[in-house]
Amino acid sequence: MTERPDSVPAIDWSDLPPGPCPVSSALALFGDRWSMLIIRDVMNGVHRFDDLVNHIEVSRATLSARLRKLTEAGVIVPSDYEDAHGRVRTEYRLSESGWDLQNVLTALREWGDKHVFGEGNEPLRLVDKRSGRDVRLAVIDDATGVEVSGSDIRLAPGPSFDNTYGSGPL
Amino acid sequence: MTERPDSVPAIDWSDLPPGPCPVSSALALFGDRWSMLIIRDVMNGVHRFDDLVNHIEVSRATLSARLRKLTEAGVIVPSDYEDAHGRVRTEYRLSESGWDLQNVLTALREWGDKHVFGEGNEPLRLVDKRSGRDVRLAVIDDATGVEVSGSDIRLAPGPSFDNTYGSGPL
Repeated sequence: MTERPDSVPAIDWSDLPPGPCPVSSALALFGDRWSMLIIRDVMNGVHRFDDLVNHIEVSRATLSARLRKLTEAGVIVPSDYEDAHGRVRTEYRLSESGWDLQNVLTALREWGDKHVFGEGNEPLRLVDKRSGRDVRLAVIDDATGVEVSGSDIRLAPGPSFDNTYGSGPL
Repeated sequence: MTERPDSVPAIDWSDLPPGPCPVSSALALFGDRWSMLIIRDVMNGVHRFDDLVNHIEVSRATLSARLRKLTEAGVIVPSDYEDAHGRVRTEYRLSESGWDLQNVLTALREWGDKHVFGEGNEPLRLVDKRSGRDVRLAVIDDATGVEVSGSDIRLAPGPSFDNTYGSGPL
């Protein structure tokens, strides 16, 4: 106990009973490779079934099933449009909660750029469209906006901790 | 064309041919629910096989298979330790590239907190251990550290764009 005590008592995750978890809940809705790739493509402007089939190289059956699941989850919203021949077709857009997945996709992209392609070999960059400068994800102090190191992040009881874990192990 | 032109010409993702993609590459390594939950638990201090089985509520066969795949991907590193009876057992830690998945997990956590639990119902919070204040993910300008709105982010050609897409559609 000679280390400087942290201001916040850490929660020992491994002592918490299995319970509802935001990570697990999110993954239950779209935590598979095809769903994530569909979200990536719709986020980047691919909205039509045939375009998704060609661009993701996914089977029509798998795409149908995943689009249905993502629509039920409220992440994808189908809407009708008329094609050049006046036929009614369906296209797929992100809902507001779907757009909130942007950081998930950015985090995956940054990891792949760093560990699969490697620095200097990235096919694409993420930039601020106004300045053209590179952007990146960071953990920031919500109050001050100052960046916080990943090694200084801890889990702490949230407002619904007692409801979820009871008096729990603490 | 009456909109204010952006400083950076946007890449139209939907016009790019299917090609190597950092998101897709990352998902091929750990883009399934069990792998992500294993990474979540190991990141949070659950290092032993039996503890992972109990805490994630995963079958031993699935856990074995996923640990093997994550080890081959270099994300998880197994190491030996002696248990209380002097038997050599294996425990699992994250490699440096595994720790680099922290933002992926944080992004999933934030999404689940917002859209599954809802504000005020989060079982856990993420805080800066030094100050106890809430932290969150943000996209920042890499040069200035200033936060950038998600709606101002664009894809632009990276250093390896031509190698990946050739002269491409641009």
